[in-house]
Amino acid sequence: MNSDLDILSAGAAMRRGDLSPVELTRACLTRIDEVDGAVNAYVEVYADDALAAARQAEDEIGRGVDRGPLHGIPIAVKDLFDVAGRVTAAGSRSLADAPPAEADAHSVGLLRDGGAVILGKTHTHEFAFGSTTPQTGNPWDLDRVPGGSSGGSAAALALDTCLMALGTDTAGSIRMPAALCGVVGIKPTYGRVSKGGIAPLSWSLDHAGPLTRYVADAAAALQVMAGHDPADVGSHDAPVPDYLARLGDGVEGLTIAVPVNHYAENLSAGMQQAYEQSLAVLEQLGANIVAVELPLAGAYMGATFAIMMAEASAYHRRRLGSLGDLYTEDVRALLEAGLSLPAVDYVDGQRTRGLVQAEWQQILTSADVVVVPTLPTSAALRDSDVLDITDSYSESVMSAYVRLSCPANLTGLPALSVPCGVDAQGLPLGLQIIGRPFDEATVLRVGAAYERATTWHQLRPPSPEPHTGSGQR
Amino acid sequence: MNSDLDILSAGAAMRRGDLSPVELTRACLTRIDEVDGAVNAYVEVYADDALAAARQAEDEIGRGVDRGPLHGIPIAVKDLFDVAGRVTAAGSRSLADAPPAEADAHSVGLLRDGGAVILGKTHTHEFAFGSTTPQTGNPWDLDRVPGGSSGGSAAALALDTCLMALGTDTAGSIRMPAALCGVVGIKPTYGRVSKGGIAPLSWSLDHAGPLTRYVADAAAALQVMAGHDPADVGSHDAPVPDYLARLGDGVEGLTIAVPVNHYAENLSAGMQQAYEQSLAVLEQLGANIVAVELPLAGAYMGATFAIMMAEASAYHRRRLGSLGDLYTEDVRALLEAGLSLPAVDYVDGQRTRGLVQAEWQQILTSADVVVVPTLPTSAALRDSDVLDITDSYSESVMSAYVRLSCPANLTGLPALSVPCGVDAQGLPLGLQIIGRPFDEATVLRVGAAYERATTWHQLRPPSPEPHTGSGQR
Repeated sequence: MNSDLDILSAGAAMRRGDLSPVELTRACLTRIDEVDGAVNAYVEVYADDALAAARQAEDEIGRGVDRGPLHGIPIAVKDLFDVAGRVTAAGSRSLADAPPAEADAHSVGLLRDGGAVILGKTHTHEFAFGSTTPQTGNPWDLDRVPGGSSGGSAAALALDTCLMALGTDTAGSIRMPAALCGVVGIKPTYGRVSKGGIAPLSWSLDHAGPLTRYVADAAAALQVMAGHDPADVGSHDAPVPDYLARLGDGVEGLTIAVPVNHYAENLSAGMQQAYEQSLAVLEQLGANIVAVELPLAGAYMGATFAIMMAEASAYHRRRLGSLGDLYTEDVRALLEAGLSLPAVDYVDGQRTRGLVQAEWQQILTSADVVVVPTLPTSAALRDSDVLDITDSYSESVMSAYVRLSCPANLTGLPALSVPCGVDAQGLPLGLQIIGRPFDEATVLRVGAAYERATTWHQLRPPSPEPHTGSGQR
Repeated sequence: MNSDLDILSAGAAMRRGDLSPVELTRACLTRIDEVDGAVNAYVEVYADDALAAARQAEDEIGRGVDRGPLHGIPIAVKDLFDVAGRVTAAGSRSLADAPPAEADAHSVGLLRDGGAVILGKTHTHEFAFGSTTPQTGNPWDLDRVPGGSSGGSAAALALDTCLMALGTDTAGSIRMPAALCGVVGIKPTYGRVSKGGIAPLSWSLDHAGPLTRYVADAAAALQVMAGHDPADVGSHDAPVPDYLARLGDGVEGLTIAVPVNHYAENLSAGMQQAYEQSLAVLEQLGANIVAVELPLAGAYMGATFAIMMAEASAYHRRRLGSLGDLYTEDVRALLEAGLSLPAVDYVDGQRTRGLVQAEWQQILTSADVVVVPTLPTSAALRDSDVLDITDSYSESVMSAYVRLSCPANLTGLPALSVPCGVDAQGLPLGLQIIGRPFDEATVLRVGAAYERATTWHQLRPPSPEPHTGSGQR
């Protein structure tokens, strides 16, 4: 029994009677037992509940009941989402003794209703406020970070312990670990997937979405998770299209914008090469590549951080007083800095955001998508705060990992990361496809075309050895 | 020639050939000369331009050209709106030497295209950040304030110097002076009238709208000013209904919500009595009165001020450094206080706002409108910062004048103020009608029904004597 299946094939095999949901879930649970010790992707595994859900799916599918593309599929849930009856600790000691959630998060409920089998919770950087997820190792090199904040979900997928894992993305937290662990992740348009029942970081920048191993899997998962939630004021009631229908249409005739600045700057040699080759692949497939400039790029990071820090600190300020000692030092320092941020800087950040949205809207009037690197380089060492990106250019890990992903949070535009190569150290790299509001279908279509034309999604990390590093469950 | 005409009658008389637009404009200019010295409603009068526009209107109307309900109607413009070729000083010495505006504000352009005759600019509280308009006297008692920030416009109307005057409203600045000067003012739904070309105070709370003497005049003016402006990101593209079509339909069968808290508290004896009588009138006319509670009322003022101060200070912060000495002391103090407001307070204010919007949405699901006092009392003395509202209750002028009007800014809901009585000192009082988003038509319909049933709109201030007070042009 192999846990390295794609969702659509697994589903088809289940419906044919060739694959037992219970056996697939058992295979995932076994795989977790075998490989997660060293990596520590999971906070907790709900083996009994998972097997019960798998048995129900097996029974239903056997009777011809079809709950959709995730029916019988084992998934993992970032520990920022409420799962009914389970504690949402959000990676924080300050929540370790919190009462169990009374209900599923909106998206978790949709997945459960869709027959998905919840295997367990994956590690998050504390309160999603960081880019490393220090609890977890990178399956490609245990001395390196899986990225944050959805690091546990990306590592769980790279290890083939599940077929989909939930993530959240405030400044890159789905796409960053997806790129660093060699898997797929999509941050949908702001408001496309409900934030209901998810611990907030920064409400106006927060997004939820799936991480998967393949683009079609991301489309299938998004199909189940997307939709309007009246309880989330940011939720949008635009109709949800069929994300799988046009996935095979290719990129012939599509216009792809490629920025000449910001995303073209300070890339590692490996990323530079992978990016150029990726664009050549897309051009070869028939896409029109056009160069564009982003005049406001210099303001992206400042606006993102002003908004994120103010909103995060507003949410945490009362807790910080009573429970601050239980926060990790780095997250607490960020939140305390946010408390003294002047309101005028937040207002300026929001005004800048309006201009940035207009800038991107303009580009996406003529271009179908923008294709850029997900990150400037590959995974950082776990004990380092600085990344040497080229021989002459070093940058803090936080800044390096946020600068190319945060624009899609500021604008709210849908953004997909797909594996696009490995660098000289054998570490995975990610290609980012950003599209028009609520046009996830085209973003996924471009990603699927790229995936079909390349083999990067087939690469797997070496099978992990027992590890004596800093991993802690 | 009487300048005390309503807009629709004047328009009909012009179209019949019984009224000359040029003579009407001359009558307004003469009236300004006669009465504005003491009150000082006008910053500047554009007599030549006005007469030229009136001649053009006369010619067009004579040839059967019809530019709509404002064609040939003399209006005044709050000195916060750009008028092409004229300086927008926004009541501030720091802008006295600013270059003339290159183009009309969006709403001014619509009015000019609609054939309105621009008489001149009216005084505003500096940068619209205040509730008194100290340059101008209240026509009912020159020792009292006309209210702010559209004080000049309200006074100009009360003196019969124009048929409509533009105002802006961030926390009450249209409705407050309308109530205190005994005229009509409507703050439309947020986004209904463009903010383009208007000096901002607080972009998320700012609204533009007309002040008039009669409700039908407000409907006619709004008809011309309303509409989508792509250059204003807050502008909404909902269709503009015919605001005059159902103005005569009455209130029979409409449900009017009357809050038992907040708006019912700390009213002057005169306002209390006028409010009760007004509700009795509406009930007599066939409306159903239902009592409602506003559980979040205690948070209205804090949220409004946090948002307003942060946004205003963000806009002014660079100017404050170089030109702060030219600001008036009170406005500068408010803006400097705003510079040190923490971002988390702004974020909390915006979160509260979301809850307040939901609270009002809930009430307006079953009620057609909410009817409340515009202000707790009548006009304050010009030299006093405190209002004695009852024998046992005093309050700062700013707080008293904002607390009942700011909720419609937080929620963005349309709100109309109509004259509803005079107090024991013979000073006018205002009744406020708040409606559903983009349902100005029902708000105006309720106001028109009330107006038809009462005579308060016919009251006029005593003819002003030459005054030696603090008025300064």
